[in-house]
Amino acid sequence: TTNLQRDNKMAWLEKPIKGLLLDISGVLKNGDLAIEGSVEAFRRLKASKIPFRLCTNETQEPREALRAKLSRLQFDVDLDKIFAPAPAMAARLRQEKRIPHLLIHPKINCEFDQPPNGVEPDCVVIGDACEAFTYEAMNTAFNILLKLKQKGEPKFYTLGRGKYYMEPNGLMLDLGPFTAALEYASGLTAELIGKPSPRFFKSALDSLELPPDQVVMIGDDIVGDVGGAQGVGLRGVLVRTGKFQPSDENHEKVKPDAIVDNFSQAIDQILQKCCYSCKSQRFDDRVPKK
Amino acid sequence: TTNLQRDNKMAWLEKPIKGLLLDISGVLKNGDLAIEGSVEAFRRLKASKIPFRLCTNETQEPREALRAKLSRLQFDVDLDKIFAPAPAMAARLRQEKRIPHLLIHPKINCEFDQPPNGVEPDCVVIGDACEAFTYEAMNTAFNILLKLKQKGEPKFYTLGRGKYYMEPNGLMLDLGPFTAALEYASGLTAELIGKPSPRFFKSALDSLELPPDQVVMIGDDIVGDVGGAQGVGLRGVLVRTGKFQPSDENHEKVKPDAIVDNFSQAIDQILQKCCYSCKSQRFDDRVPKK
Repeated sequence: TTNLQRDNKMAWLEKPIKGLLLDISGVLKNGDLAIEGSVEAFRRLKASKIPFRLCTNETQEPREALRAKLSRLQFDVDLDKIFAPAPAMAARLRQEKRIPHLLIHPKINCEFDQPPNGVEPDCVVIGDACEAFTYEAMNTAFNILLKLKQKGEPKFYTLGRGKYYMEPNGLMLDLGPFTAALEYASGLTAELIGKPSPRFFKSALDSLELPPDQVVMIGDDIVGDVGGAQGVGLRGVLVRTGKFQPSDENHEKVKPDAIVDNFSQAIDQILQKCCYSCKSQRFDDRVPKK
Repeated sequence: TTNLQRDNKMAWLEKPIKGLLLDISGVLKNGDLAIEGSVEAFRRLKASKIPFRLCTNETQEPREALRAKLSRLQFDVDLDKIFAPAPAMAARLRQEKRIPHLLIHPKINCEFDQPPNGVEPDCVVIGDACEAFTYEAMNTAFNILLKLKQKGEPKFYTLGRGKYYMEPNGLMLDLGPFTAALEYASGLTAELIGKPSPRFFKSALDSLELPPDQVVMIGDDIVGDVGGAQGVGLRGVLVRTGKFQPSDENHEKVKPDAIVDNFSQAIDQILQKCCYSCKSQRFDDRVPKK
């Protein structure tokens, strides 16, 4: 059965892999440190020409700051390859011509269009505002939500539902608890913009111009990354780095298509198989289409 | 059927009423104004010698400040007649010899014993902290909760679950949303200390030294006052003042024993019947017990 187990473990590589979605925190880096082997693996991935997008729930920093931080860690990536909730939200607001009230981190303001002066907001957007989560700011957002509810068209968006994250001086509350607070007070349910919202994964897929069954997501969050990606038809690979917990290997709801030690191992397995599957795919391409 | 309806409406007066629990906000007063007729009704109640307790979820002010405010509005009441979540919590902490971390309004600190210096808290208490609900204060409370959870004995108390209240400059978030935020982040459920917790009603009953079926609660909150009181065997009377909404008259879960226009009407009906029931009760008392 050892062979069988090994075969099953590799089953996720049978279908072609033509693109990748990569989480950043916990996959490429932890805080300000690159995860061992991931810089080299990232270079191998780029050399392979397999297209990829970085898919992050980072909402404290604008993409440019994230790109610069990744560059300092030797991950060189173009800005348009980074998919994050704030620019996704800004694009949606632009598309739906909405004027948001923003309860977000001041640093990320630059991702949003400046609303015209004197125009009342018609939706509320909550991000990881940190110190900007004051009682006054929470009250302001709440009063706007209740006014929109009374008008009958309440739109309430959250850039994430994370509970907390680790900082050098302890655990810090993420935006999930503050979203929960405003939901409790207003009786409204916020629409999630980041992972694991299907719309967010689909926007990254659209950018790759690939169908979901040809793309693999690699992440350290069993629910947000792996479960979310599987929910829209991607394969989901869990790494044993970042926020990974041993109990994730027997998660009651989400079964990853593969569990690997780290990003480097995932890339090795993909590149090894991909040569085969790319070739067979090229062969298929030569078959005349009906 | 008019007679029958009238009779049914008066059914709550058939059993003896030997004590009362009264909500303050929305029953005796709205904000800084006495509700019409309530000062006189309160005097009639005191003259009747029917014992009563004030049962409030006020957690922003200490009882002494509340007593002084009531006194300015011509409601003269002794401090030991006021039951509020903070002193109930303080009594419980004293009884269980616990050291709390307090996330409460600075004004209400005086209700709690000062914890000894350098001793780690073994529970977290959240009140209506208002401006003191900073990101830093929320983080501190959260980190203590998680530490207690890891130790295996997490105790988390909330002085209320109110969503919001009205102030002259708009709606203000109550402590419920911030309780919800810490519950979401920690995965813990806070124990409610104020209304409608059965323990809170029972402490007021204990003070009256009366069984629940001889006591009536009068309040403006269909769930917190009326439903809560009924849950421990009291009769619950709803007033059409304060936060009362017409839809409360057909509430899907809570059926008040009576709905009256205001506190004054409730007291009139009780005093009118009480003379009868007190007499009949006195008569019953003369029947030799087996």
